[in-house]
Amino acid sequence: MLSKNKIKFINSIKKKKYRDAHQKFFAEGEKLVDELLKSDAEISTIFATNEWLEQHQQIIDKKSITSYLITNEELKKISALSTPNKVLATIKIPEIKYNKTEIAQELSILLDNVNDPGNLGTIIRIADWFGIKNIFCTKKSVDLYNPKVVQATMGAIFRVNVHYINFQELLHDFYDNNDFIIYGTFLEGNNIYHEPLSPKGFIMMGSESHGISQQWEPYIQQKLFIPHYPDTKKTTESLNLSTATAIVCSEFRRRLF
Amino acid sequence: MLSKNKIKFINSIKKKKYRDAHQKFFAEGEKLVDELLKSDAEISTIFATNEWLEQHQQIIDKKSITSYLITNEELKKISALSTPNKVLATIKIPEIKYNKTEIAQELSILLDNVNDPGNLGTIIRIADWFGIKNIFCTKKSVDLYNPKVVQATMGAIFRVNVHYINFQELLHDFYDNNDFIIYGTFLEGNNIYHEPLSPKGFIMMGSESHGISQQWEPYIQQKLFIPHYPDTKKTTESLNLSTATAIVCSEFRRRLF
Repeated sequence: MLSKNKIKFINSIKKKKYRDAHQKFFAEGEKLVDELLKSDAEISTIFATNEWLEQHQQIIDKKSITSYLITNEELKKISALSTPNKVLATIKIPEIKYNKTEIAQELSILLDNVNDPGNLGTIIRIADWFGIKNIFCTKKSVDLYNPKVVQATMGAIFRVNVHYINFQELLHDFYDNNDFIIYGTFLEGNNIYHEPLSPKGFIMMGSESHGISQQWEPYIQQKLFIPHYPDTKKTTESLNLSTATAIVCSEFRRRLF
Repeated sequence: MLSKNKIKFINSIKKKKYRDAHQKFFAEGEKLVDELLKSDAEISTIFATNEWLEQHQQIIDKKSITSYLITNEELKKISALSTPNKVLATIKIPEIKYNKTEIAQELSILLDNVNDPGNLGTIIRIADWFGIKNIFCTKKSVDLYNPKVVQATMGAIFRVNVHYINFQELLHDFYDNNDFIIYGTFLEGNNIYHEPLSPKGFIMMGSESHGISQQWEPYIQQKLFIPHYPDTKKTTESLNLSTATAIVCSEFRRRLF
């Protein structure tokens, strides 16, 4: 049974304001909740159909998670999906920190005002695939716990750390680091296929509509460009932000194989 | 002024059944309609706000396109976007053919039951960027003229040819071609970064949920895999279909630079 208060609560945390107030978000669907159960995330409550609960009783008991049996009709009232899928879990928003010494030894992604939830979610999934542990977003970027972002990560949200941060300070902190390079993608950048690429650095990607803000340009130490083919053709086309991020990350990792 | 009949007609062609019956689809928004006006596509009618019409009067007259001045309120009644954007155009569905001799000399993408409109649209945009002129889809794939597909292409739909075809016949036709290789992406494939890749061939991508159907496996001459990093880690993650397609196409084209 799903009380009116619970329905109201879950619908409220579809909005950032209430997620911030309650420090809770939710994830739903079989695949995502399976990934959640494998992670260290702090699950508050699970709402699930009989079928799902029967299959997961053991782990629910083992982890001592509060769970509610609900019907498909009730699930529709709280789900953010067009086709709700058996289970929805509310989760405590974790405190996400980073260690400067570790960041200095790794490759991280910087997103300058990413707007589209699908893009952020997909980029988190790409980072997970390519072993990139940290993503830094400007504070104006779309919220990590927006249900569409959570869904698009397909569970990678529980393995990759996403930080909302003042870029000025971040760039300032790492600008002079030894062997550490700040890369950015630009239309007038150099052909990424021929550029030397370091396994330690930042890859900055611009927003969907405005690219990388002018204010960060002085910090960019190497400008990269994904060439279209053939490179002589005149085109008006562009690549989607998450598509471009995928190609750039793949090219950085290829050098290590 | 937008008549009730016109509203009804445009809303009907949001569905494949009516697009097929009328042989019409629509594209909307400034960017997409600008790309449309640059293309050879046969525009039936344009519905636009005063602001858009004033800016485009010259080309509308030059191309002798029937246009209607509508208000933002009227645009909302026909748009498929959450934020309608100034203009919507109805377009005649073109007859799309391919030439076997040309296909034999080029790289094309094969999509085995692509389901998600956003994925198909994004893959068309990727093909456009990388100079891949033809995409072949199984007949069960999502329809090219679904408004979400059209929108996700960002105009690339007017430059890339998408064919719905019987794969059995297509694969049979090209299987024995000289210097022509049929590639497929598989979890047990070879590291794509180290494989020889031909500029003539088919790249087959599986569906979002089922990968490449078993029935096409006998035709696949080279199995490819995008390695995650580090390649020793155990993970449950995956890449989104359009993300994987982007990385694969980038790697094929990189070899030509």
